[in-house]
Amino acid sequence: MTAEPFKIGLLGHGTVGAAFAELLPERADQIAATTGLRPEITGVLTTSRGTFEEILAASDLVVELIGGLEPARGYVLAAMAAGKHVVTANKQLLAHHGEELWAAAREHGVQLRFEAAVAGVVPVIRVLQESLAAAHVDRVHGIVNGTTNFILTQMASTGASYADALAEAQRLGYAEADPSDDVNGKDAAAKMAIIARLAFDTPVHLDDVRYEGIEQITQEDIAYARDLGLSLKLIGTAERVGEGISVRVHPAFLYAGHPLASINGSFNAVTVESPAITEITMSGPGAGGPQTASAVLGDVISAMIPPASTPETTQQLPVVADAESAFYLHLEVEDRPGVLAQIAQLLGLQGASIKSVVQQGTGSGARLVMVVHPMLESKFFAAVDLISRLDFLRGTPRAIRVLDEEFAA
Amino acid sequence: MTAEPFKIGLLGHGTVGAAFAELLPERADQIAATTGLRPEITGVLTTSRGTFEEILAASDLVVELIGGLEPARGYVLAAMAAGKHVVTANKQLLAHHGEELWAAAREHGVQLRFEAAVAGVVPVIRVLQESLAAAHVDRVHGIVNGTTNFILTQMASTGASYADALAEAQRLGYAEADPSDDVNGKDAAAKMAIIARLAFDTPVHLDDVRYEGIEQITQEDIAYARDLGLSLKLIGTAERVGEGISVRVHPAFLYAGHPLASINGSFNAVTVESPAITEITMSGPGAGGPQTASAVLGDVISAMIPPASTPETTQQLPVVADAESAFYLHLEVEDRPGVLAQIAQLLGLQGASIKSVVQQGTGSGARLVMVVHPMLESKFFAAVDLISRLDFLRGTPRAIRVLDEEFAA
Repeated sequence: MTAEPFKIGLLGHGTVGAAFAELLPERADQIAATTGLRPEITGVLTTSRGTFEEILAASDLVVELIGGLEPARGYVLAAMAAGKHVVTANKQLLAHHGEELWAAAREHGVQLRFEAAVAGVVPVIRVLQESLAAAHVDRVHGIVNGTTNFILTQMASTGASYADALAEAQRLGYAEADPSDDVNGKDAAAKMAIIARLAFDTPVHLDDVRYEGIEQITQEDIAYARDLGLSLKLIGTAERVGEGISVRVHPAFLYAGHPLASINGSFNAVTVESPAITEITMSGPGAGGPQTASAVLGDVISAMIPPASTPETTQQLPVVADAESAFYLHLEVEDRPGVLAQIAQLLGLQGASIKSVVQQGTGSGARLVMVVHPMLESKFFAAVDLISRLDFLRGTPRAIRVLDEEFAA
Repeated sequence: MTAEPFKIGLLGHGTVGAAFAELLPERADQIAATTGLRPEITGVLTTSRGTFEEILAASDLVVELIGGLEPARGYVLAAMAAGKHVVTANKQLLAHHGEELWAAAREHGVQLRFEAAVAGVVPVIRVLQESLAAAHVDRVHGIVNGTTNFILTQMASTGASYADALAEAQRLGYAEADPSDDVNGKDAAAKMAIIARLAFDTPVHLDDVRYEGIEQITQEDIAYARDLGLSLKLIGTAERVGEGISVRVHPAFLYAGHPLASINGSFNAVTVESPAITEITMSGPGAGGPQTASAVLGDVISAMIPPASTPETTQQLPVVADAESAFYLHLEVEDRPGVLAQIAQLLGLQGASIKSVVQQGTGSGARLVMVVHPMLESKFFAAVDLISRLDFLRGTPRAIRVLDEEFAA
């Protein structure tokens, strides 16, 4: 059967763009057989080649893989204004300008698809927008940055320091030469903004997302956690809190039974919780040229067949700054009577309930490692602030969140 | 905003049907806000109430939750012939008559959606049909029956016998009074037939799927496996073998690192392997009224917006009977010299390579527990048949497949 051509304009030819240009012809026969249209790349825009206007004029659909805010935003808006569908992998663009872009897609009756912008080939966008279109989502947890998950997995499995694990990630291509936006949590924050927008049907901007990275994590944190049966991940959380929502990214320990605890290496995973369904977990490679290109291609095919537009939001939920969490707290103290009692009292004054505590001598001093049950973060940190001023404290207290106590053995 | 009504005819009012009738009005406002259409149930067919013709005439879409082959097949065909979209949770219907039904959907230009027929709320159908529409899938592994996974999890965690774990599953509502089609593997086989059809784009009938159940699994199998770092699951496999495919269901051990090893209780999970994407794993509740109803509702909403038809198959791949697998083999033997050598020789003649072997005394005899590297099942069973005739063997050899050696620690 002869299939009509379906013309794709490709903006950007970096790792993902090149992988997409390689994947498309390999799968074109199969796509032509099932859709009746044969996709082909009719123009490629790079910094040295092509003009946007020429490529747009020759395209049925535009794939944006330039990244960054401008000129990507201008190109995507212009393509949609010209009646073309757009597929993008650009998380920063959507976390900053999502509402503007989705509104433009609705206005011009075109599709804007972005599976590859979040968690690579893990189909979290499609599942949130389609399978769970009418579900009341309570909470999403995600490991949405492969670089940091690789580094933390290395530290846990080899005993490497943060610096050595980062260097190994760079050597293997899992981290860029400048890894700042990965290791400081900003990349994950952009992805959680997009996830929260879809999960809760309310506008969420990158600025609404609090984030911490993994730069301060030490080998000792990970080793102690292991003694408590915990593993350490950089976790994105989007959840309903009262009448609002909280969206944040920070390192957190997970009990062995948690669905995200076994996600190792550069993989990504997302768990969606909703009363009607309990929870769905999805995992897979979160990055990589061929993997991301595969997610782009899935979107292209969906756009070639018919639409599924991102509907206008119907709610405007407040973003809540404070949230509840269980915590691991690690203190180095002088070994003298009454130390534990004073610390427990300061925690108790803020409403903390201690789940477990381990005390160890360290020669000249002692080490206290405790886990406290979920409590408001503001109250926990207020207690830690008071504890840090105690005269018998040696060094700074180390606090790390613990996810979902129900998975504890 | 006033939304136009979207009329749903509901066939069947059992556990899932009742849950769907309860869920729909709860979510109708949200659906109306995002789609512009307000779904409502305009007719319900039960054995004592309603006629199919009246319900069909008053519907924009028909939800089939009767189960079984007839009259479900006739109703679904008649609904599509009348130009109505159909959403069904009926795995036996699709595993027997899928090609006829999908052809009818294409002929009449309507949608036939069936996410709820496989793995409940785990979005495996949508991901295979849409996200991975153009992916070359090599293999799918699935835990697609919640009853058996619950029973095996109980046996592993409490030390219960198969009979006691089954009784507990029945008491808690995870197993029916007559659990035959769950525990013998037939339910999982129907689901794997549907998955294989979508993964490999070739017709697959239930009769093409080999299946074994868990009725013969003993507490001892599970205890020994644990000593080897393995857990036991009822695993569905659909994979390419040479130019053909193999689709089968059987108990199998998994190494702790396998993505399916940590799927416990009544949860389902599916892992899809494809060269371009490595693998995607999805997990969640595989059954239950509200969960399945939620999957049905996701399909209804997708059908309310526009189409995504199941395309005609473009290939006709042969179904291969034999397949490769690693095996665990447990033998009770008399404790005398030369026993291990003779067994190893019989295995070696069939090309088996032994990965590990543990020998233990048992008072009057000895117990050999070994794991062999992947080999053709036919050859492995030929060796076991010869071994079972050795005069020093006490009792029947016990053989269980081992999944994916690469996850071994």
